[in-house]
Parts: sequence; structure tokens; C-alpha cells
Amino acid sequence: MKHRKLFMTILTLVGGMALIVAGCSNSQQNAVPKIQTNIPDAEPDSKVWGKVFPLQYESYLKNNEATTETRYGGSKPVSKYLTQPLLPELFKGYGFALEYNEDRGHTYSVEDVTHIKRINDKSPSSCWNCKSSDNVKLWAAEGKDYFKVPFKQRLDQIKHPIGCANCHDAKTMDLKVTNPNFIDSAKRLNIDLSKATKQEMRTYVCAQCHNEYYFKPGTMEVTNPWDKGFNPDEMVTYYNEIQFSDWQHPDSKTKMIKAQHPEFEMFKSGTHGANGVSCADCHMPYERDKDKKKYSSHHWTSPLKNIEQSCRTCHRDKTADELKTRVEYTQVKVYETMIKAQEASNAAHKAVKAALEVPEADQNAIKQAQDLIRKAQFEWDFVAAENSMGFHNPSLALETLAKSIDNSRQAQLIAEKITKK
Amino acid sequence: MKHRKLFMTILTLVGGMALIVAGCSNSQQNAVPKIQTNIPDAEPDSKVWGKVFPLQYESYLKNNEATTETRYGGSKPVSKYLTQPLLPELFKGYGFALEYNEDRGHTYSVEDVTHIKRINDKSPSSCWNCKSSDNVKLWAAEGKDYFKVPFKQRLDQIKHPIGCANCHDAKTMDLKVTNPNFIDSAKRLNIDLSKATKQEMRTYVCAQCHNEYYFKPGTMEVTNPWDKGFNPDEMVTYYNEIQFSDWQHPDSKTKMIKAQHPEFEMFKSGTHGANGVSCADCHMPYERDKDKKKYSSHHWTSPLKNIEQSCRTCHRDKTADELKTRVEYTQVKVYETMIKAQEASNAAHKAVKAALEVPEADQNAIKQAQDLIRKAQFEWDFVAAENSMGFHNPSLALETLAKSIDNSRQAQLIAEKITKK
Repeated sequence: MKHRKLFMTILTLVGGMALIVAGCSNSQQNAVPKIQTNIPDAEPDSKVWGKVFPLQYESYLKNNEATTETRYGGSKPVSKYLTQPLLPELFKGYGFALEYNEDRGHTYSVEDVTHIKRINDKSPSSCWNCKSSDNVKLWAAEGKDYFKVPFKQRLDQIKHPIGCANCHDAKTMDLKVTNPNFIDSAKRLNIDLSKATKQEMRTYVCAQCHNEYYFKPGTMEVTNPWDKGFNPDEMVTYYNEIQFSDWQHPDSKTKMIKAQHPEFEMFKSGTHGANGVSCADCHMPYERDKDKKKYSSHHWTSPLKNIEQSCRTCHRDKTADELKTRVEYTQVKVYETMIKAQEASNAAHKAVKAALEVPEADQNAIKQAQDLIRKAQFEWDFVAAENSMGFHNPSLALETLAKSIDNSRQAQLIAEKITKK
Repeated sequence: MKHRKLFMTILTLVGGMALIVAGCSNSQQNAVPKIQTNIPDAEPDSKVWGKVFPLQYESYLKNNEATTETRYGGSKPVSKYLTQPLLPELFKGYGFALEYNEDRGHTYSVEDVTHIKRINDKSPSSCWNCKSSDNVKLWAAEGKDYFKVPFKQRLDQIKHPIGCANCHDAKTMDLKVTNPNFIDSAKRLNIDLSKATKQEMRTYVCAQCHNEYYFKPGTMEVTNPWDKGFNPDEMVTYYNEIQFSDWQHPDSKTKMIKAQHPEFEMFKSGTHGANGVSCADCHMPYERDKDKKKYSSHHWTSPLKNIEQSCRTCHRDKTADELKTRVEYTQVKVYETMIKAQEASNAAHKAVKAALEVPEADQNAIKQAQDLIRKAQFEWDFVAAENSMGFHNPSLALETLAKSIDNSRQAQLIAEKITKK
């Protein structure tokens, strides 16, 4: 019996270590018990789902917490102008020059989008697209007409923030992409979402909103610019071909593109994304209640607040402090390079503004400078608007910022040749 | 007995997995059997050591192999001008504009340094400093006078390439730093080399040569510019304070600094270096002879040629192809950004050259542009001269290249304001 006990201990050890290795490999497909609920289809009220899944719902309510525990980002609605002081100049003439705050948690999405200054009477429903679980029924009922309805006409229709219905089938709890823009994009990319693995779905349900998009002129449909690829260069080429712009910068008269929140695009080619890690692996780590029952946290926030459960599931040979130090080592570099890129961009706008005032200036040269400004600003904004301060893909972030600096300075050189000052 | 066999199998499994985890942690201190040899102190001929350590010596002889199996670098003496075509312009007026080849293996160090075009009658012995195991006795005998002797006066004294004596104590085989510049630097940094762990020594013996250095004016002593820190910015500040330059660029009349091979500086703050991995962990992986006897490979080359033994000792959840793809994903970004930085640097030299021809040009502005050129060129060269195409620290490499581009373009802007062209 003594031998047997030792044998069992060793077996447990081997099993445990095997699990550690498997848990960090990209072939993980855990067997999940089948679920059958009576929650109504696409029920927008997450409280209703919470009665069946109280642990998940309790963690979801933590999205109400406002914290600034990380070096960058945070869930308090502080102005980004404080840490990126050139933003009002760089977004001059566009809504992001009126107000541009850090996002609060998903549970505030309806309240915050309703009060944000850049929403106005002309805003379409497209601005509601990623903000509410009420959308799931509206999309189903209205199809592409959904987008055209003015934003303010829906104030009575949309009450519930982002919630369970956005990502889950109510009956089976299966992960489900509901957002029409991602469904459309998947079709264009020949991705069959019905055949996606659970691990892929643990990224796709987040990616359906956390991506770069534009409102298609005319239909105002939320659309991903992915036909040529997921890299910033490829997206600019796409935008150039369809001659899309969000606004014209009043100084340089450049037709600009605002980057949104391209987490999916940045992450998928980064070390974690390329190695089969999903968004949920780090942002929805498994937790245990007082009875040791395991559940996925639905408190979507920085893994740096929860390193033990997030990073250290795989990176067990490092302490939380060591891991945080490492993440910040890169983030500081990305932040400082981003600030340099914004300074270069600002100088380029000003230089082209001056060149435009020169009588009989070479219009081809001005156009060339404006094209460089447009690309350069999208490049730094691709990093600035992305919610990881480069962590999701440091190499892509820093390469893109280097290109941005080069493009802005070249625009400035062209413009200053015209002004000869 | 059957149980016992199963028990032993499981024990081996547990042991094996524990070893895997420990082997990739930073607390590894293997117990090594004590060695006592009769090899003469500082014996320069590695063949003599090879009689006692035939496996290590046999692997050392593989440094004679000339290969180009990796995307960047390689051990064939091909000209760097082929992949970095602006180098002759950028190093104009300096030896590296005459010839600048990829290095062959360590076993060719004497032959190659003797024939390289940038060595001339004025070259001091400092150019022998990292090239031969004969140095160990010469350093001991001559002290700091070693450096002043003209290079060509030592052609009869120095016969043996880099070898065993450079890194090992002949009697005990303990790792040993022999290079006086690294011993001096350690003192200035308050590092007690006699107390270094074996794992630290597995980096230091490589770092004693694979670093950024300059020849101290007057004594020609090989010296590391580390008093302010190991980052490129800090080294430029150091060089500025002592007003050091390697040569003056004939176009921009800028006093330039040539970066050497700052592998140690780049690596120590990168993911691997900061986490306690040593140079030898990846570049001298353990191999086994036909009788399964384990030994450290002394074939110093890219780990990408030997991923199974190098990378996959720790990164076991990935295939060799997956790991290589990941390394190259970043290296391509670093290479392409480096080329952009070289283009910007070249444009800056040309712009300042033109500004210098303007009568009564603002000399303060020209000085400002030259200072930017000096910094920018050291920045891209810090990456270009470093032998990993950014892999040793992608964030530092790409941040440094972004700074380089910004500094060069700002130099160009200042200069072009003077020429008003």
C-alpha cells in the first residue's frame, strides 16, 4: 500500500506536469460538458444569464471597477491628452480632438457612448455596433439597414451594455460570433466560422469588435479593411484604393484615416497570437470560487492586474514581478517611440500648412507630402489606438512607428523645400 | 518486479520533466566533476588541449566550415555591401569603406585579421586583441604596453587563432576571463569576476570580446564605453563627453563613431539575457558523441543551424520550423528598418555636405546637424554591427533604429534649411 500511494503521487505529478505543457501548447482542446439552458435566444439582459451562471456574472460585474493599476491604459475615463499632448492637434477637425478618453469597462459601454462628445446628430447606428447586447436582435431583424438609422433614434432601443448575448448562444453557451462585420469579413477571407475550433473562437468572439474598421460610405456598414492583409501597410493600400478618408485635417488639408482599436490585427502575428494563444487565455483566465469550482473570468482587463492567473499559467518559471518588468521594458520603448512619431507627424502637418500658403507651389509635391502624412499618421495611430502599448506585437509596433517617423519627416522635407524656409 | 519497472519508468519521466523545467530556469547550477590536467598554463595551441578533450576539440574544428544557411549573417566572407549597399558611402573615409565582410569562424581569426584591407602600417596591436590565444601570454607579460606595439610587428608572435586559452584555465578547465579590457570594465562596474556564477561566466567569456569598444587615444587600450550604461544612448553620451571619434566623414565633416559588435550589450537586456540565459546556452548547446557522452559544442555559430539542440532545449512545445519562422519574422523587420535608417543617414550626410558649401552658413546649425548625424549613425550601426539582426533584443534594436531615422531626418531638415533647396 505504501508503494501504491507513492505511485499515485508520482502519477499525479506526471499528470500535472503534462497538463502544464499541454496548457501552453497550441493544440489544446478541452472536453467541455454539454449545456442546455432555457435562456431566451439573444436575451440582451446579462442579469438573466447570470441566474444560471452566477460565477461568470459576478466576475462580469467587476467590469464596473475603475482602476489605473497599470502603467498604460486603465479603466478610468482619463483623457488621453494628458499622456499624448499632441492628440488634439493631430486630430484637429475631427471628433477625437473634442474628447478622447481611456475606455471604462464593457459594462459602461452604453452609458459612455451616449455621452461622448464626438457623437452628434449625424452619427449613424454604426457607432452602436460594438456597444450593446441589444444589437444581436436588431442585427437579426434589420440586416444591413441597421447601420443607416441615426444613432440618436435608438436611445430607447438600446439599453444593455456589451454582454453575454454578444458572444454566446443562449441555449448551448457555445461561443458565437454575432457581429455582422466580422461574419462578413470571415466570408471574404474564406474563414468558415462554423468550423472554427473552440480555441479559435476564444479569439474570434473578442476580435469581432477589437479590430480596425471603417464605415462604408453610403451604407455606413461597419467594415474591416482586410482584403489585402492585416498589416498597417496593407490596410493603408486598401484605404488608398477605395479612396477612403474619415476627415480632412484643416492644417495640411490631408485626407486622414483614424485607426480604431486593431487588437486582433496586432495580436494575431505577435508571439502569442502566432503560437495559438487566444485572447481569452490571458484576458479571461480560469478562476476558482470558494468551493474550488473553476470558471472563466468575465472581467475583461489587463492581464497585468492578474499575472498569477493569466501570464503564470504558462510562464511558471518567472515571478509576477519579473514578468511585469519584462512587459513594461517593451511598453516604455513603444510609448516613447510613439511620442516621437506624433511629434514628427505634427511637424509634417505644420510644414505642409506653410507650403500650402506659397503661391504657385508645386501641387504634385504637396500631394506627395500629404500622402506621406496620411500613411504616417495611420501608422502611429495603429499603435496608439491599439490597447496593449505594443505588447501584443512589439516588433510590428516598433517597426510601424519607425516607418511612421520616416514618412512624416519625409513629408516635412518635401514641404519645407516648397517654403524654402 | 513489474511494479518496480513501471515505478522506475515514471521516476525517469518525472526526473526528465523536472530537468526540462530546471534547464530553462535561471537558477541552474549543475555540479561539475573537478578536473585536473597537465596542459601548460595559457597554452596557445588548442590542439594540445584537444588531446585531453577530443570531443570539444573536434567540435571546435567545425568552425572551419563555411556556411550561409541562415537568412542573415553566415560564416562565408561575403561582402556586407551586397545586402547593405550604402555602407561604402556611410563609412566613407574609414577602413570599413575599403572592405567589410561577414566574419568567418573563430578558427580563421588570425588569417583573416592579417589580410583584411582596413589593417595598415599604422594599426596598433589593439587590432589583435580579440583574435588569438597567443594574447593570453602576451597580455600577462606586457600589461598595457601590449596595445602600443604596431600590429605588423607581431606577425611572428601571433600564430594561433581564438582558442581554448582565451576562456579556460588550463589546469582546472574553469571558465576564465582573460581579456584585459573586460577585466578592467568589470572593475569599473564593481563586478567581482572571481565571484561570478558558472552561468554568468558562460556569458562573460563570450562577452569579453563580443562587445562595443574603442581604442583609448594615446594608450590605444581596448576600452568599453560603459560608464554611463549599456544602451546606445548612454554610450553616445559617454563618447560625446570624452570627445571621442573614430574618423571624420568627408562629406558631412562629422566626427563619427564606428560601432563594433555589441552582442553583450544588446543581449543582456533582451528577453533571453534578462532572464538568465547565457550565450553558451544557445551558442554552445550540449551534444552527445556516439557513446552518448555529453559535451558542450565549441562550434560557435547561429543557433538557427542547430535548433533542436539550442532553442528546443527550452522551447519544446514548438517545432524547429515554427521557431525559425518566429525568429525571422522579427529579423526581417529589423533588417528592413535598418535599411531605411541607412538611407536616412546617407541623405543627412549629403544634405550637410551641401550646407557646408553655402557661404556664411549658420555654423551652430551645422554643428547641430552633425551631432544628430553622429548619433544616428551610431544607432543604426549598433544594430548593423551586432551579430543577430536584432534577435538578441528586438525591442531595443527597433527602438534604436526608429531613433536613428528621426535623428538623421532632423539633421537633413536643419541642413536643407541652410541650403534652402
